Amino acid sequence: MSNSPLTTPELIHSPKEMRAKVLAAQKSGLTVGFVPTMGALHEGHLSLVGRAAAECDVAVVSIFVNPTQFGPSEDFAKYPRTLPDDMKLLSRYNPVWVFAPEAADMYPPGMSTVVQPPSVALPLEGASRPTHFAGVATVVLKLLNLVPADIAYFGQKDYQQACVIRQMVIDLDVATRIIVCPIVRDEDGLAMSSRNRYLSPEERTAALSISRALRVATERLEAGDRDAASIAAGMRAEMNAAGIREIDYAILADPQTLETLQTATDTVVILIAARVGQTRLIDNCVVSLTPTL
Amino acid sequence: MSNSPLTTPELIHSPKEMRAKVLAAQKSGLTVGFVPTMGALHEGHLSLVGRAAAECDVAVVSIFVNPTQFGPSEDFAKYPRTLPDDMKLLSRYNPVWVFAPEAADMYPPGMSTVVQPPSVALPLEGASRPTHFAGVATVVLKLLNLVPADIAYFGQKDYQQACVIRQMVIDLDVATRIIVCPIVRDEDGLAMSSRNRYLSPEERTAALSISRALRVATERLEAGDRDAASIAAGMRAEMNAAGIREIDYAILADPQTLETLQTATDTVVILIAARVGQTRLIDNCVVSLTPTL
Repeated sequence: MSNSPLTTPELIHSPKEMRAKVLAAQKSGLTVGFVPTMGALHEGHLSLVGRAAAECDVAVVSIFVNPTQFGPSEDFAKYPRTLPDDMKLLSRYNPVWVFAPEAADMYPPGMSTVVQPPSVALPLEGASRPTHFAGVATVVLKLLNLVPADIAYFGQKDYQQACVIRQMVIDLDVATRIIVCPIVRDEDGLAMSSRNRYLSPEERTAALSISRALRVATERLEAGDRDAASIAAGMRAEMNAAGIREIDYAILADPQTLETLQTATDTVVILIAARVGQTRLIDNCVVSLTPTL
Repeated sequence: MSNSPLTTPELIHSPKEMRAKVLAAQKSGLTVGFVPTMGALHEGHLSLVGRAAAECDVAVVSIFVNPTQFGPSEDFAKYPRTLPDDMKLLSRYNPVWVFAPEAADMYPPGMSTVVQPPSVALPLEGASRPTHFAGVATVVLKLLNLVPADIAYFGQKDYQQACVIRQMVIDLDVATRIIVCPIVRDEDGLAMSSRNRYLSPEERTAALSISRALRVATERLEAGDRDAASIAAGMRAEMNAAGIREIDYAILADPQTLETLQTATDTVVILIAARVGQTRLIDNCVVSLTPTL
């Protein structure tokens, strides 16, 4: 697939038309890579699109701010919607098809089936945001039915979401292959997120303590420390010192089940969710240590 | 598709192999019709297979006694399993592929995603069998992902199940078209069911009051009676007179929402579930009346 610059991506609103286009492409022998997003694209999203473009003949990017994955007190109304900017950013890649369905087409009257996500959805984000992953699982399954891609790409930034989707796809025998891509960070270390634009300069400075806490924890693990509770306390102290008071979780967990660990094993995922001002941020880091002989 | 008799159908156990076969057939331009069953095939099932065989190039019949749609006190263990007989019956059609997966392949350890079915699943069977339709919706979605057929065929005998599947397929944007086929009855009027083989001769005689109750109700509707509560009482009396005491429901309902009607409209579905001895039977009948001028 060529990267001829500044070709306006094709924009498709109709779910029916979207599926027909994907099936026609596949029938003609092309492979399709799919990147589901809520728009407000940043370099994190674009790294997924770049990978889809490199590995498949056509990249499809969906842009849909999915109402059902927001809780009643969350930021659905103010979530950034920047379709013209998104289209411009996507013009780096060619061919890219942008699927931007209307909420009324995704959730017509009478729509009442819900995918109850796998058990890995229960802790952490599932505890803080009880209906979130049912909304995510349902919309992702719908999107994978409308864009029956060969491969779909998700970001590791939403680590638990990636676990939920990977397990759901196995559990329901969805044919699409799931690939999870690394977190992209700004130069100062902050994990890219559409919600970063909510942060004031002071809040952004405070938010840097999140990725710093992950680094400190990683260093302790690499130095041989296995006391997960103490490492977790260290992460909280790091964020508290930067003025962050509302920490939903800061833990070391099993990378498959997401169960909180008291003693670190050779592969752990370090997971943080914290509120900086009004903005809830998440970040994570997988640490794989070579067992000492 | 030819009906050359007595060709042994091809038997596939592996989900992966099954999907690959269907996709290869479709890639080569063939259409695929799918009939999901729990085996113990009778002429009701075969009418679906016949329709699939007539309308599509290949008919796929799945035979899987799905554990998750049985309640803890239900007849999962004793449900009839008659694969050799089923294969013989299916040899009428050609080509037929029989998909008979193992429970361990459908529900491997860790499988925990569940499709919470649409609201039409709540009354009637949903009230009598609280986890039944989640089991049905989940396994049907899995089967439609493993056998991504052009058309899938279901029997009207399980009226509410057909409503649940039709709505789930709409809600989750499943690409397969759903066709619901008429009930097939024995000469004495009893709706064909794999569970009829549980009935003793006396029970079978009693069970005939179910279809008789449907006929009496239909005649009253055709005669202009619109008093749904009185018609329902008449159905109960008919079954009680035959010795049936345990009636889960015997109602006139809206054919889309399945809400119980007090006053019959021009199109109604009459639905009955009752226990005859140890055997729970269901039956139904849709009545469409031309509005009187």
